[in-house]
Amino acid sequence: MKQNNIIKKVREESPLIHHITNYVTVNDCANITLAFGASPVMAHCIDEVEEMVSISSALVLNIGTIQSSSIEAFIKAGKKAISLGKPVIFDPVGCGASKLRSDVSKAIINEVKPSVIKGNMAEIKHLLFNKSNMKGVDSEESMKDAEKISVELALKTNAVVVTTGKVDYITDGKRIAAVSNGTSMLSKITGTGCMLNSIIASCCSVNNDYLVSSAVATSAMGICGETAEKNLNINEGSGTFRYRLIDAFYFIDDEKINKSGRIKIV
Amino acid sequence: MKQNNIIKKVREESPLIHHITNYVTVNDCANITLAFGASPVMAHCIDEVEEMVSISSALVLNIGTIQSSSIEAFIKAGKKAISLGKPVIFDPVGCGASKLRSDVSKAIINEVKPSVIKGNMAEIKHLLFNKSNMKGVDSEESMKDAEKISVELALKTNAVVVTTGKVDYITDGKRIAAVSNGTSMLSKITGTGCMLNSIIASCCSVNNDYLVSSAVATSAMGICGETAEKNLNINEGSGTFRYRLIDAFYFIDDEKINKSGRIKIV
Amino acid sequence: MKQNNIIKKVREESPLIHHITNYVTVNDCANITLAFGASPVMAHCIDEVEEMVSISSALVLNIGTIQSSSIEAFIKAGKKAISLGKPVIFDPVGCGASKLRSDVSKAIINEVKPSVIKGNMAEIKHLLFNKSNMKGVDSEESMKDAEKISVELALKTNAVVVTTGKVDYITDGKRIAAVSNGTSMLSKITGTGCMLNSIIASCCSVNNDYLVSSAVATSAMGICGETAEKNLNINEGSGTFRYRLIDAFYFIDDEKINKSGRIKIV
Repeated sequence: MKQNNIIKKVREESPLIHHITNYVTVNDCANITLAFGASPVMAHCIDEVEEMVSISSALVLNIGTIQSSSIEAFIKAGKKAISLGKPVIFDPVGCGASKLRSDVSKAIINEVKPSVIKGNMAEIKHLLFNKSNMKGVDSEESMKDAEKISVELALKTNAVVVTTGKVDYITDGKRIAAVSNGTSMLSKITGTGCMLNSIIASCCSVNNDYLVSSAVATSAMGICGETAEKNLNINEGSGTFRYRLIDAFYFIDDEKINKSGRIKIV
Repeated sequence: MKQNNIIKKVREESPLIHHITNYVTVNDCANITLAFGASPVMAHCIDEVEEMVSISSALVLNIGTIQSSSIEAFIKAGKKAISLGKPVIFDPVGCGASKLRSDVSKAIINEVKPSVIKGNMAEIKHLLFNKSNMKGVDSEESMKDAEKISVELALKTNAVVVTTGKVDYITDGKRIAAVSNGTSMLSKITGTGCMLNSIIASCCSVNNDYLVSSAVATSAMGICGETAEKNLNINEGSGTFRYRLIDAFYFIDDEKINKSGRIKIV
Repeated sequence: MKQNNIIKKVREESPLIHHITNYVTVNDCANITLAFGASPVMAHCIDEVEEMVSISSALVLNIGTIQSSSIEAFIKAGKKAISLGKPVIFDPVGCGASKLRSDVSKAIINEVKPSVIKGNMAEIKHLLFNKSNMKGVDSEESMKDAEKISVELALKTNAVVVTTGKVDYITDGKRIAAVSNGTSMLSKITGTGCMLNSIIASCCSVNNDYLVSSAVATSAMGICGETAEKNLNINEGSGTFRYRLIDAFYFIDDEKINKSGRIKIV
């Protein structure tokens, strides 16, 4: 897949990525954004989100530790970003696990109309059918109809949909990219999904073909996971893997994506 | 002490551990839960805590960065968990350092009736006598009457009490386990107490003898600390120790507990 | 510069440092405080901040992830600390990027009268002139008039002003210290500014010449950054750098400051 030097552009332009995200993995999101060459800002107060969006190049909305009182800030920030033509990446973490998350997810999709929706199979399925069998925030759904479901949600929402799993599917409803990079170690640490949002947002902010940007970002996460795992010595587990993943993002470039990326347009 | 393959069961069943915990160490709690083979979910909004408890196998309540407005969610989640027969691990961080923390701790103990209460000597003493000489959140109390105090609080609350220190005492009021694993390096990083909650919760969710589960968990923390310290090279300090602790939990198994665990029933 | 064994004193007295800080880097602040030999407590609820200040030796106020509802707690804690003669370190993160942050910063400076104000050039300039050209929270301003601006703000606020950049300027309006330790790697991870607050607070709590304490703290951050970078092997990037920085603080002592510190009284 032709990918237009997206990472080079991120490192040159150092886009400011505004995150309204959960407090569990927010530090990892900030560090991976910096390692990737972009610049993070985290701000969630309703009194300032519109200003922060205005000086930023992309917005990440992640409901991982949502509070009822913060929903309005999500919507306000999201609408502002879209009105300014800036990409909004929405991660409906755990939607389906509680009514609150389901309601918030629907509201964000309907009112904000995000540019990219990224979730695991259970979350994407829940957004489409309003039901799923979830075990917390990790999907146990079969991936076999992931492709079909992703296309349906993309058509319904006009967003690029990124469905993560053993194979990641990225689609705008017409084109479909299947990314098969990665390692199971990525699920042994918290926050790889959240960090992926930061990378997608960084790529989308320098390249407005959001399908291509999201596919490159997703492949980058997989490749960096592979690199981090390859470097593990004996007695090194998920603790070491976590910082090596950041190291891998510090060194990733377009050449590595072109060489090791397993991105297939299906 | 006979310990029934608790860690093996955690890795097989991968129980979902619901945390309502502080924002300082929440990422470490999530990562150590994953390293240990369980699955973390962090959710604190009152509108969803009951649903999250319902799909989880255990609940951790930690008041490390409590807000007055969040007390109700702690109580609601805790009562729901107990009503469903799921273990509730309560950590009264810094109780005694402020009236708020003392009041919240009393309310949680009285209304939730937690399964396990875990604290340092100053916190446990404060819960029992409603006074202590605290320096912030770290105990400087002598440990000599730790055993006696722990038994008294266990009898008063019907909880398993875990009092951490040079020797950790775990008691249900009748049986007492003394655990003497560990290293002073564990106090050179933040969050080892919080991470211990996650490990206790994981063990309790697969083994309903909470005294044994808590003793195994406490011993595991000590052994993993010893392992992490042993692997330190020159110029490696608390930064390296921190991720090596997670690595050690990634590899811990029941055999290591049986071999290196210093658990004595006193 | 004569520096009075400040680090030795921190390690001997282990002062308790109360932080009201952002949730992005709060864990790093806690860990660096511990690595440096002090003791952290994080508490932001208005119902307990005065009690926490009372048992602490210094207070850090950092508005990195401010909410409108928490302003009152910042002011209350700050005023209490000053009334008790304890140093208050204020970091106006991103002031100038939103009206909220500008207003809060002004309120804290006017009502609390902090002992030390620490920011990058854009933030310090904004505090002085009420305008700046900011790109998010990272300064792109020229440093050439940093010295002059710092002196003016110090005279206006009666605080020691720390303006960070390639050269860091620390001034009480009369004396000026220029610190030229450091490496650009410090800007490749999040939180080095926030961590510096913890180190300044630790030093100020054992040495009440806040200019000297802040200069030593700032030099320590630069030296530890240099040490962490020097130890990087091939394929080790910002992920590794981050924990090596904590390691460096675990081993820093006054001798290293005296030997490697580039502190010039200008």
